Amino acid sequence: IAKEVAKLLEMKAQLGEDEGKHKFVLKTPKGTRDYGPKQMAIRERAFSAIISCFKRHGAEVIDTPVFELKETLTGKYGEDSKLIYDLKDQGGELLSLRYDLTVPFARYLAMNKITNIKRYHIAKVYRRDNPAMTRGRYREFYQCDFDIAGQFDPMIPDAECLKIVHEILSDLQLGDFVIKVNDRRILDGMFAVCGVPDSKFRTICSSVDKLDKVPWEEVRSEMVGEKGLSPEAADRIGEYVQLHGGLDLIERLLQDPKLSQNKLAKEGLGDMKLLFEYLTLFGITGKISFDLSLARGLDYYTGVIFEAVLLQQENEHVEEAVSVGSVAGGGRYDGLVGMFDPKGRKVPCVGVSIGIERIFSILEQRLEAAEEKIRTTETQVLVASAQKKLLEERLKLISELWDAGIKAEMLYKKNPKLLNQLQYCEDTGIPLVAIVGEQELKDGVVKLRIVATREEVSVRRESLVEEIRIRTSQC
Amino acid sequence: IAKEVAKLLEMKAQLGEDEGKHKFVLKTPKGTRDYGPKQMAIRERAFSAIISCFKRHGAEVIDTPVFELKETLTGKYGEDSKLIYDLKDQGGELLSLRYDLTVPFARYLAMNKITNIKRYHIAKVYRRDNPAMTRGRYREFYQCDFDIAGQFDPMIPDAECLKIVHEILSDLQLGDFVIKVNDRRILDGMFAVCGVPDSKFRTICSSVDKLDKVPWEEVRSEMVGEKGLSPEAADRIGEYVQLHGGLDLIERLLQDPKLSQNKLAKEGLGDMKLLFEYLTLFGITGKISFDLSLARGLDYYTGVIFEAVLLQQENEHVEEAVSVGSVAGGGRYDGLVGMFDPKGRKVPCVGVSIGIERIFSILEQRLEAAEEKIRTTETQVLVASAQKKLLEERLKLISELWDAGIKAEMLYKKNPKLLNQLQYCEDTGIPLVAIVGEQELKDGVVKLRIVATREEVSVRRESLVEEIRIRTSQC
Repeated sequence: IAKEVAKLLEMKAQLGEDEGKHKFVLKTPKGTRDYGPKQMAIRERAFSAIISCFKRHGAEVIDTPVFELKETLTGKYGEDSKLIYDLKDQGGELLSLRYDLTVPFARYLAMNKITNIKRYHIAKVYRRDNPAMTRGRYREFYQCDFDIAGQFDPMIPDAECLKIVHEILSDLQLGDFVIKVNDRRILDGMFAVCGVPDSKFRTICSSVDKLDKVPWEEVRSEMVGEKGLSPEAADRIGEYVQLHGGLDLIERLLQDPKLSQNKLAKEGLGDMKLLFEYLTLFGITGKISFDLSLARGLDYYTGVIFEAVLLQQENEHVEEAVSVGSVAGGGRYDGLVGMFDPKGRKVPCVGVSIGIERIFSILEQRLEAAEEKIRTTETQVLVASAQKKLLEERLKLISELWDAGIKAEMLYKKNPKLLNQLQYCEDTGIPLVAIVGEQELKDGVVKLRIVATREEVSVRRESLVEEIRIRTSQC
Repeated sequence: IAKEVAKLLEMKAQLGEDEGKHKFVLKTPKGTRDYGPKQMAIRERAFSAIISCFKRHGAEVIDTPVFELKETLTGKYGEDSKLIYDLKDQGGELLSLRYDLTVPFARYLAMNKITNIKRYHIAKVYRRDNPAMTRGRYREFYQCDFDIAGQFDPMIPDAECLKIVHEILSDLQLGDFVIKVNDRRILDGMFAVCGVPDSKFRTICSSVDKLDKVPWEEVRSEMVGEKGLSPEAADRIGEYVQLHGGLDLIERLLQDPKLSQNKLAKEGLGDMKLLFEYLTLFGITGKISFDLSLARGLDYYTGVIFEAVLLQQENEHVEEAVSVGSVAGGGRYDGLVGMFDPKGRKVPCVGVSIGIERIFSILEQRLEAAEEKIRTTETQVLVASAQKKLLEERLKLISELWDAGIKAEMLYKKNPKLLNQLQYCEDTGIPLVAIVGEQELKDGVVKLRIVATREEVSVRRESLVEEIRIRTSQC
């Protein structure tokens, strides 16, 4: 009987499995998406603008693995550490998916004892955050990072990072934007003079970081209620974090009776002044705002921090400029590499990360609204036939074209109709058709049809490649 | 006392943690590597050749997430499933890192009900295999896939896939190669006529797949010993799998008294003949070998299968041509998309995957041997100064150059020595130096130095951009 029961149970288990198969969910994991050919065309346009800018500034490129040893990421992200994806322990090392490109970069520098590099890195990072996909917030998303590592004179690399953000956002024509700038030393100095105990600096900093999303009153009550800050200290912070401006504000704060007494704040304000001088030479201060409410969540920043936000989009016709969210951010992190170096040797770094997913969303929505047709291939010519039984001739011709570097397609049919071949060109935007027919073969020519004008010309076979090149103006 | 013990234990635990910190291992996970700027330069050259080829054949491009629902990958890879990386269950969906790009492609087609597409996809895949890094075998590695999905006339897309492999391997100049071709239907027909029971087809196929690495005697003893095949059947298989050749062999097997009686084998051989006719038109049969020992490990193939192997490398001076391993592979998988479709609708597919890591290793070793210097940036000009106190002038000039699209760098020093600036150009291969000095500023000119020749010319400031463009022959 036991044997029979076991058999029955096994059968049931198998049935269960089959049932499971039918309930199979056909989807990508939560917070992720596929990129189809159209999305990829948009994505590659944006990447190309960003990469051009990074190369214009003399950056090299590196790549690191998608996962790191778990301990490499531990203790780098403060409260956000809970969002890290861990891999299952399948024997061997404990691994986590990278949360950003900055920590792997620091690990790379320490591991290879590099003290001086300017590099970019474009790759996917992973955060188990609450996705908001229509606004471009995903669990898997690209970051485009540019960083300068090395011991240099103050604020020159920092200014270049801001110039880069300015160039990229201008280039991509995303509408008006502002780059908010602050300095962790100014924040820490401010916390000190407001009476925040040292031990609460980082957690109060996290609260301030929320000011771009929630009103001051809420942030204040978090500081006082959850984090146990005195109401007086909170109110003093409240006065500072409402300030934003330019060189004038920096000058004013340098005269501020309390801040000017604090060493850190004074250092930070001095460097901020220098930064603004360099940005003036770059001619970009019009889009820069020194903003005391900017805090940035991550633990590792030590100096200048910044964040670029897009203002109201052109086509929205809203009266007031509304921030639609951050599209780039970064800052200085002089201590991170030292955390990885066995002897704690520091390598000062400053860098910027472009949040490309939100930019994609905007470009995608804009293209959809404009109903612009995007080509997703670069095919120059379709090799077609006018009569039946010419498959072999088409194969011979297309092979010649491929070998000459021409981008060519043909329909995978033995005897396709000419009309279907022409329709395929219309649908996919192929500009030329090379038509082989019995008469053309006898005459040693190919009929070349220009899809847009329906014009047809007879081209000698040996001139076909050159003719296609000229007509698609390839250099 | 209990309290005190607890305190002590806690202190000990903390100490333990600290000790752990000191033992911190500075490395990338097992089987993975970083790509530094030099490696990236090599990698991008290879990618560019591959992408050019894919675009020449009219492919669109897609991208999918790095992880999939675990169940998406289940039951697709046969014995290799154990190599899949699972993510930790942190609440929510069970996820696995993708094992290849083919299964995500099939999922994408089924999910979006696409029945017709020609696409490429270049991305990293993950296998918990035994790494052999010097030979280019990693746990994280790139695949470059090109696939044609759709219902077409037989062997036309299949022939194009082989043409693509031929083009890419020729283009990359990796030395001599051969593309082995077989068909799952011929294999299955052969197994049937050799007396292999239906239920053992896949597992015997796995054994045959090992023939490129181990001799026939070992494979035979696995078949007979581990897998319980009769020695007679094994010996019959042994006779077939030694055969390889071209059209002549196909013709001979079509006359084979046993094989020609088997429906599957006959179908496969008929298509193989057609394939060779098309490959003759493409002019590439010289590098193609119909090889009955080629089996390919994966479960999902249903028709033509192929694998490209490099023969002896040029610089090795070995007498006989030795296979250095597979650099590309692929085949037809007509059933995979149907496994994802709720109604089981099939979309026939054929595709090729380029194993780029092994190609990188070869290119890397070759470049190291040649001691060729590779530039890792594209910088056209260094903005330098001949005297002190010219930082602001350098910042102004470099900003003008960047805004005009010139790739420019400067040293991040207030007062760098001219010699150091020139040395930087020598080290990094920057061809031009734009030198600002007090006299030049007065005269409204910039001194342009050509690093290679040490020639210096005076260029009016307003002509500088044009002059740099001409001298670096940018189009």
